[in-house]
Amino acid sequence: MMNKLSGWDDTIVALATPPGVGAIGVIRLSGKNAFSIANIIFPSKDLLTQKSHTLHVGYLKDGDTILDEAVLSLFKGPASYTGEDVIEISCHGSPYVQQQVTDTCIKYGARLAKPGEFTQRAFLNGKLDLAQAEAVADLIASNTAASQKAALHTMRGGFSENLKHLRDRLITFSALIELELDFSQEDVEFADRKKFYELITEMTVSTRQLIQSFSLGNVIRNGVSVAIVGKPNAGKSTLLNSLLNENRAIVSDIPGTTRDTIEEIINIDGILFRLIDTAGIRQHSTDSIENAGMERSREKIKQADLVLYLFDAADDSEEIKAKQAELEEQQLNYLLVANKIDVIGEETAKQKLAPTNNLIFIAAKQQWHIDVLKNRMVEAVLKGQVQTENAIVTNVRHYHALKEVAASLDEIKAGLDNKLPGDLLSLDIRRCLHYLGEITGEITNDDQLDYIFSKFCIGK
Amino acid sequence: MMNKLSGWDDTIVALATPPGVGAIGVIRLSGKNAFSIANIIFPSKDLLTQKSHTLHVGYLKDGDTILDEAVLSLFKGPASYTGEDVIEISCHGSPYVQQQVTDTCIKYGARLAKPGEFTQRAFLNGKLDLAQAEAVADLIASNTAASQKAALHTMRGGFSENLKHLRDRLITFSALIELELDFSQEDVEFADRKKFYELITEMTVSTRQLIQSFSLGNVIRNGVSVAIVGKPNAGKSTLLNSLLNENRAIVSDIPGTTRDTIEEIINIDGILFRLIDTAGIRQHSTDSIENAGMERSREKIKQADLVLYLFDAADDSEEIKAKQAELEEQQLNYLLVANKIDVIGEETAKQKLAPTNNLIFIAAKQQWHIDVLKNRMVEAVLKGQVQTENAIVTNVRHYHALKEVAASLDEIKAGLDNKLPGDLLSLDIRRCLHYLGEITGEITNDDQLDYIFSKFCIGK
Repeated sequence: MMNKLSGWDDTIVALATPPGVGAIGVIRLSGKNAFSIANIIFPSKDLLTQKSHTLHVGYLKDGDTILDEAVLSLFKGPASYTGEDVIEISCHGSPYVQQQVTDTCIKYGARLAKPGEFTQRAFLNGKLDLAQAEAVADLIASNTAASQKAALHTMRGGFSENLKHLRDRLITFSALIELELDFSQEDVEFADRKKFYELITEMTVSTRQLIQSFSLGNVIRNGVSVAIVGKPNAGKSTLLNSLLNENRAIVSDIPGTTRDTIEEIINIDGILFRLIDTAGIRQHSTDSIENAGMERSREKIKQADLVLYLFDAADDSEEIKAKQAELEEQQLNYLLVANKIDVIGEETAKQKLAPTNNLIFIAAKQQWHIDVLKNRMVEAVLKGQVQTENAIVTNVRHYHALKEVAASLDEIKAGLDNKLPGDLLSLDIRRCLHYLGEITGEITNDDQLDYIFSKFCIGK
Repeated sequence: MMNKLSGWDDTIVALATPPGVGAIGVIRLSGKNAFSIANIIFPSKDLLTQKSHTLHVGYLKDGDTILDEAVLSLFKGPASYTGEDVIEISCHGSPYVQQQVTDTCIKYGARLAKPGEFTQRAFLNGKLDLAQAEAVADLIASNTAASQKAALHTMRGGFSENLKHLRDRLITFSALIELELDFSQEDVEFADRKKFYELITEMTVSTRQLIQSFSLGNVIRNGVSVAIVGKPNAGKSTLLNSLLNENRAIVSDIPGTTRDTIEEIINIDGILFRLIDTAGIRQHSTDSIENAGMERSREKIKQADLVLYLFDAADDSEEIKAKQAELEEQQLNYLLVANKIDVIGEETAKQKLAPTNNLIFIAAKQQWHIDVLKNRMVEAVLKGQVQTENAIVTNVRHYHALKEVAASLDEIKAGLDNKLPGDLLSLDIRRCLHYLGEITGEITNDDQLDYIFSKFCIGK
C-alpha cells in the first residue's frame, strides 16, 4: 500500500494551527528529511544528535536572515503522530512570519501538505486504522460533550477493535471453507458449521447494534432539527426566547454555521438542537394570516426530527385531541406543549386537558417548567436509541458499510440454514469481509483514501 | 516591582493559538502551580519528575472523563518564556475541546490570563526589557519583511542594549555630581566635566539617530499612504491595476484591514504602500466633471505620504512644469509620472518634456517601466532616512520618550557650556535618566505596564 502513495518519500509541511493572528502558530514538518530541513533553518544546534521528545529554543534563519525566534519539538519516527520523523515549529503568531517559515521549509526541500495528509500518513504507517483517523476529524469538528466523547471513543479504538477481531475470526472460517473447495470431491468439512453459525450470530448482533447506534450518532454529529409550530399567539417566539435564554450555543464556535443562518442552536445536555426557521417564528409570531402560517408549519414539520406543537392551555381540548391524532397519524416525533398555564392556573389546565395524554404544561413567559420541557426534548431524541457506552457510529460511511455487512451476514446465515455448498457461502463471506475491511481500512483504494482525507483540514 | 503585581502567585492559562478550527491548538499554563495542575489533568505520568524541555503524549482527563489526547511541552522556570514554570498543551484544534481543557485548568486552580500577561510576566521576571516585550507584539503584527526585521531586531536587544549601556554611564556621572553637592562648600569636582561632555555628545548623536529612524519606523509599521492623482484620462486606474498586478498584498493576512476598505495595499521591497481612495480612482477614472475631480485630488493629496502625479506624455510641457512648481511649493513628497509613452514614443516624450526634471516615463497599459516607477517609489520613501542596520524605532511610545531624552540632553549640554552648578545639572540628568528608563522599563508604573500589555493578544 505504501508504494502506491505518490510522494511517499516526500517531506511535507503545513501550518497546523488555525490561520490568523495569535500569540503563537505551529508549523508541522513530517517525513524522512524533516530533521535535515530543520537543521538548515535552525542552525544553532545539530538536531540529528538530539533525543526524541525534546524541545529546543533558537532562531530560525534563511541564510543570514533571521525569520523568527522559535521552539522546536522533535519527534523521531515511529514515535510520532505520523510514524515518520516529525518536527513541530512553534513560532510567533504572525501570518506573515508563518508564511516565511513555511516557504523556507519548502525552499529547502519540503512540500506543502495536502489536507489530511499528516493523518493519512499516520494511517498508512499503521498508527491509526481508518475509523480512528476519521475520528480525528470528528474530534476537531466536535462542538458538544457528546460529539467529543463519541469521537474520542472511536479514536481510541472504539468499535473498530471489535470489528477487526470478528473479521479475523471470519477470515479463519473463510480459509477453511475455501480449503474444503480444493477437496470438493471428498466431501470433507474443515470448518465447524456449528461454531461458524455461532460466529455469524454474534457478528449479526454486534453489527445490528452498531447500525442502530447510528441514529444516535447522527444526532450527536449533526444535532436534532426542531420545529416549533402552533397557532398564532400560542407563544412560539416567547418559548423560543425562553429556550435560548440559558442554552444558546455559541454559534461562532461551531464549524459551518454562520450568524446569518435562520437557525438558532441550543445545547441541552450535550445534544445540539437546531431550531429551524427561527426567523419565521419571530417574523410571524403575530401573523394574522392563518393560511400562510399553516402552510409554513407543514413545511417546517416535514424538515424536523422533532416537532414541538404549542397551544394555549385555554384552547378547546377537543381541538387539541384532534391535533394529537393528526400528529400520531403522520408518525412524527412530537411533543404537545400547553402554554400560558399561568393564565388559567396549572391545576385547571391539567383537569381541563386530562383527555389528552402526555402533555407538557408550561408558561413560557414565566419560565415555568421549561426544564421539564428540555428533559422531555432530550428523552424524545434518545428514546429507542441504543444507550451503549461502547459503540456509537457517527460516520455515514461506516453506517453504509455496516448495512452491507449485515446484509451479507443474513445471506451467510440463510446459506448455512439451507446447507448451501461452500463455493456459494464463500462469495457472501468475501463480501462481508470486504465491507468490514472498508471500515477499518484493511481494504481501501487510493481514490477512496484521497476522498476521505481531503475532507480534513490542512495541517492535520 | 514584583510585589506590586496583583496575582503574581497565580498560575495563568490561555489559548495561545488563534481561535477557530485547525489541526491543533496550544493552551499555555504559566505559574508556580503549572506542573501540579497539569499533573491532575494529565494523570498518566508524574510531570514533576520529568526533565525540562521534554515532550509527553497522553490523555487529558477531568476525573474519569477523557477530554483529549494531547502533547505536553514542559519548560521549568527560569528557562521558559515567562521565567516561571510553563506547560504548553497541544490539543486537537476544536474550539470546544480547547474550551473544555482551559476550563478544566481553571477548575483545578489556574486563572484565565489577561491580554499580554505571559509577556508581562516575562518582563517582570527580567526575561525581556520593555522595548523587547513590545517588539513581541510588533512581530506578531508584522506583515512585511521590513516590519518583521525591525521587530526581531528590537526583540533581540536592538537599541535598548545600547540605551541601557549609555544610561548606566550617565548614572555614574549623576552619582558623582550628586556627591559633589554634599561637598558643595569645598568646590570639588568628582565628575570629570570633559568626559561627561563627551558622554552627553555621544548620547545626543545616538538619540537623534533613533529619533530620525522613527519616520522610517513609522513607514515600516504603518505603511506609506500614496495618492495617485492627475487629470481625467491620464490613466490612473490603468496604473493602479498595473501596480496591483504583481504586488497586491494579501489583505486578509494584515491585521486591522478589511476587504471592504477603500484602500488597496501593495508590497514593494518589503514596504507596504496604501493606495488611498482606490474606489474613487476606479469610479472617477472616466469622470468628466473636472471640478469635482480636482476637489477630490486636493483632499487626497493632503492625506498622502507620497503623491504620484500622473499625466499624459502628450500633454503640454509648460502645463506640467507649472504643476511641478505647484507641488514643490506645497513641499509635497511627489513623483511626476508621464504615462502613455507608447503613443508618442519614448524618445519623443523625453525630448518634448526635457525642461522638466526628474520625470518617470511609463506606459501603464503596456507595463513599460513599471519597475522603474516602483524603485522610485521606494527611494522616495527612504530618501533622507537613516539607513542603519542597527536601530529603527517603530514604537510611538519610544519615539516620544526619546524626544524627551534629546531635550534633556540639550539642557545638560547648555548647562555644561554655561558652567551651571551641579544641583541644576542634576535635575536635567534625572529627567534624562527617567525617560531612558521608561523605554527599557527600568522606570515604569503599574498603570503604564497594564496599558502597554493590554494591547497584546490573549495567550501572549
